[in-house]
Amino acid sequence: MTTTPALLKIFKPCNTLMRDNMLEAFDLTGRVPKGQYSSIVEPLEARTAELQREVRKRGKSVIIVMEGWRGSGITRIINLLQPVLDPRGTRVHPIAEPNDIERDHGMFWRFWARLPSYGQTAIFDRSWYTATIVERYNGDSMKEIPASCIEDINNFEAQLISDGNLILKFFLHISKEEQKKRLNDIKDSPFTMQARYLHRKEGIYMVNRDFEMIDHMLMKTDMPSSPWTIIEAESMKYGYVRILQTFNSAVECWLEKGDGGQKEQNQTFLLKSVEESEESSLLQKADLTKSYTRAEYKPILQGIQESLRDLQVEVYKQNIPVVIVFEGWDAAGKGGCIIRLAESFNPRGYVVEPIGVPNDWEKMHHYLWRFYTRFPRKGHITIFDRSWYGRVLVERVEGFCSEAEWQRAYHEINVMEDELIRDGTVLIKFWLHIDKDEQLRRFNDRQSNIEKNWKITDEDWRNREKWDQYESAVSAMIRRTTTSRAPWTVIPANSKYYGRIAVLETVESALQKKIKEIK
Amino acid sequence: MTTTPALLKIFKPCNTLMRDNMLEAFDLTGRVPKGQYSSIVEPLEARTAELQREVRKRGKSVIIVMEGWRGSGITRIINLLQPVLDPRGTRVHPIAEPNDIERDHGMFWRFWARLPSYGQTAIFDRSWYTATIVERYNGDSMKEIPASCIEDINNFEAQLISDGNLILKFFLHISKEEQKKRLNDIKDSPFTMQARYLHRKEGIYMVNRDFEMIDHMLMKTDMPSSPWTIIEAESMKYGYVRILQTFNSAVECWLEKGDGGQKEQNQTFLLKSVEESEESSLLQKADLTKSYTRAEYKPILQGIQESLRDLQVEVYKQNIPVVIVFEGWDAAGKGGCIIRLAESFNPRGYVVEPIGVPNDWEKMHHYLWRFYTRFPRKGHITIFDRSWYGRVLVERVEGFCSEAEWQRAYHEINVMEDELIRDGTVLIKFWLHIDKDEQLRRFNDRQSNIEKNWKITDEDWRNREKWDQYESAVSAMIRRTTTSRAPWTVIPANSKYYGRIAVLETVESALQKKIKEIK
Repeated sequence: MTTTPALLKIFKPCNTLMRDNMLEAFDLTGRVPKGQYSSIVEPLEARTAELQREVRKRGKSVIIVMEGWRGSGITRIINLLQPVLDPRGTRVHPIAEPNDIERDHGMFWRFWARLPSYGQTAIFDRSWYTATIVERYNGDSMKEIPASCIEDINNFEAQLISDGNLILKFFLHISKEEQKKRLNDIKDSPFTMQARYLHRKEGIYMVNRDFEMIDHMLMKTDMPSSPWTIIEAESMKYGYVRILQTFNSAVECWLEKGDGGQKEQNQTFLLKSVEESEESSLLQKADLTKSYTRAEYKPILQGIQESLRDLQVEVYKQNIPVVIVFEGWDAAGKGGCIIRLAESFNPRGYVVEPIGVPNDWEKMHHYLWRFYTRFPRKGHITIFDRSWYGRVLVERVEGFCSEAEWQRAYHEINVMEDELIRDGTVLIKFWLHIDKDEQLRRFNDRQSNIEKNWKITDEDWRNREKWDQYESAVSAMIRRTTTSRAPWTVIPANSKYYGRIAVLETVESALQKKIKEIK
Repeated sequence: MTTTPALLKIFKPCNTLMRDNMLEAFDLTGRVPKGQYSSIVEPLEARTAELQREVRKRGKSVIIVMEGWRGSGITRIINLLQPVLDPRGTRVHPIAEPNDIERDHGMFWRFWARLPSYGQTAIFDRSWYTATIVERYNGDSMKEIPASCIEDINNFEAQLISDGNLILKFFLHISKEEQKKRLNDIKDSPFTMQARYLHRKEGIYMVNRDFEMIDHMLMKTDMPSSPWTIIEAESMKYGYVRILQTFNSAVECWLEKGDGGQKEQNQTFLLKSVEESEESSLLQKADLTKSYTRAEYKPILQGIQESLRDLQVEVYKQNIPVVIVFEGWDAAGKGGCIIRLAESFNPRGYVVEPIGVPNDWEKMHHYLWRFYTRFPRKGHITIFDRSWYGRVLVERVEGFCSEAEWQRAYHEINVMEDELIRDGTVLIKFWLHIDKDEQLRRFNDRQSNIEKNWKITDEDWRNREKWDQYESAVSAMIRRTTTSRAPWTVIPANSKYYGRIAVLETVESALQKKIKEIK
């Protein structure tokens, strides 16, 4: 293993660098000493390549964010880096105008979709920072990105980091004179013209180069686990050397630490674990004696279905995304509820996403990745038949993830759902509740009825043996992921008719409420 | 197992039905006998559900195509079918206006992307038929879809069928009076308004209901292995029963046959196999003594790279998609060529797709699926580091697919490439050729050089032992997939410098040629 030469300024953790007027005061005079470029760069590059292979072996990802003034040389840096990095393990994501499907989702959706699988390196040529400025920041007279945007960014990065990945963030800095020169050189390039996206806020990145605003953004998103590095790119050679150095030191440091700092996080959860055990089951409050007869059920069902049909039309017209989550005991009747719900809807506007064991490709990503990428576009309804809550239910009980992982999941899920809701989504979460005796009756029915036989497997019986463990997992889930904006609805489902009506009524009133809010 | 009741007309293979004026002469008076609907439908539905589970077990897909006049009730039929089919195994794909990414690809790209994974059922609510009419058929005065479009459709379906899947195609037929009534009922639905897509050719589906044109289209695409069924949908109940019947008979018949008729296909390949063995290696013609010195190489390289830089700009401006395929012996220098090529390009306009073993999700699809979905959008360049030719190289030699499968692949690949080219793509295919001694030299070099050590694995040595088998696979590949529009370029690469220049020059002249054609 070669080590990084100490010839130039060595990488400093950026949080010590961040201060007011940081960019304006930045020293841009750094140059690689004449005639020494090759002898400095070559060992750095060899080390970078070696480190990237090392990261790959550990099965974690490196996410490189490239931001900077317009014309600061992001493309040129990437062109230098690409031959060094293993092309089989690296992908560049140029971020420009979102396409029409992307525009119909929350801002982070397209970044989730582009996350590298484990072992891969992603280079974002512009990123959620530029996207935040262009898509969310509307106050040209203010000098600050709104706190909620900053929070979203930090939450997003925290999700990736707590999953064990490494994020490296670079801001390429050049002087005004140099910028003018470079912009002139590239003014005819269609790839620059592609940056129409940036033009919308070109004052910030170009004309008056809004130092105050960029300073503020960098400072507020300069987290210990995902610090910014300002790159002096006045000389491309110097800038490139600084990037290699930073990459190497950061990756070395991260590899030494082991698993991306997960250890610290474990501690904070101990208290909550204790608290949980004291609690009596919230589920016991559900009144399972409620029921409807068939004669009562039929006309009520028909009435709500008609109402839901009209509501879907409104949802579609008003561009509202809707997410409906079904969780519940085995044989609680999720499938039956989903059929009654879906019958109301035009298939052009909804989809059912059945969630089972993640496939191998999904396993190569953050566990929320497969859900993010399935969220509905505006005006559309996605019904999840089981969901991300598997993390704190089956994965917890069966030990498919570590305790730290499922403990962390409550917070991660709350953050994700909050983002969905702020993006305008109607989110409805159902726990279909039956008691143990009712489940046994249904299992036996399935077992003995030849047409339902395929529905029951040995796994169902095995899960049933763990009823108590699942019960406490469910209680914890409901308590810790019930927020004012994303509450759970526990459906007493011992009576199938009652359960279905309760589900449809809940959806009906949630949609009515949202449509009223909008109008 | 229940059997399909013979109460109504039994499913007839549609090719016997197809004739001129078929639609106009069609009997639309069929009705379900009064009071018997439930007793007819319920056993049919149970059987449909059972058959779908059976298909799933076999690991093949069912693709249901729903076409018909505007207002003929596609949505209603799907709403009836959905609760019958397993929601975990079924997905509806409403086909409307392509989004901007889809519009930047060939017409079939979005259908490839939506193909179900093995075991799943896909219902296309409108399909490549409507897309062909709307996107390609421009002659309202003609009465026929152009032969090339018909050929594309038949090729597409043949690819799916020879992979073992089942395609069911329905055309929903109603009378003019009934259509008028229904269109009036749904005129305010936004899901109908979404069908702006159809409006473009509304004469065909609505106003004058172009019988001649639709007849022609149905007839020309009514293949023995993917026949059309005209559904009399004047009565929805009757139409639905007909669809269930057709589904059940077709699936039963297909399950009996075993593997979607692959057997017939095997025979036709025997002759070609013989032919192949007689042939001397085309590779031997490559002059491996050609070389450049470093002093010659450097300035030539620089010159071409500059030219390629400008050409990429043109490609981007002219909206030309470019696909560059690299195949070659292990250690032939593919990586080095790709780096030199990519150095010329702006990373915003190209991507390298390294192709390895397919992941589990990819394995759940047609082997070409993972390539189709990676094809570039207009103006972009995709460089494949290995490719679909793996099917007839490593998969053939290592026995990862059956002989029938790789034998069939030559034709399938030619069809796919031809489609690419007709969609305007520049396709360049390289075989990097070195001799056995040169490979040994390079392997030994990698083995002994600590910085290159990671590049060589036991697998490389194992592959080398099968040099002769690979050589005949390569020869067959080149011979059988060299077409006038998609020829192979064999690059003599014993001299790395010579090889790289030859590659870059080939790309240069191919791009120049295309740009000239367009201008």
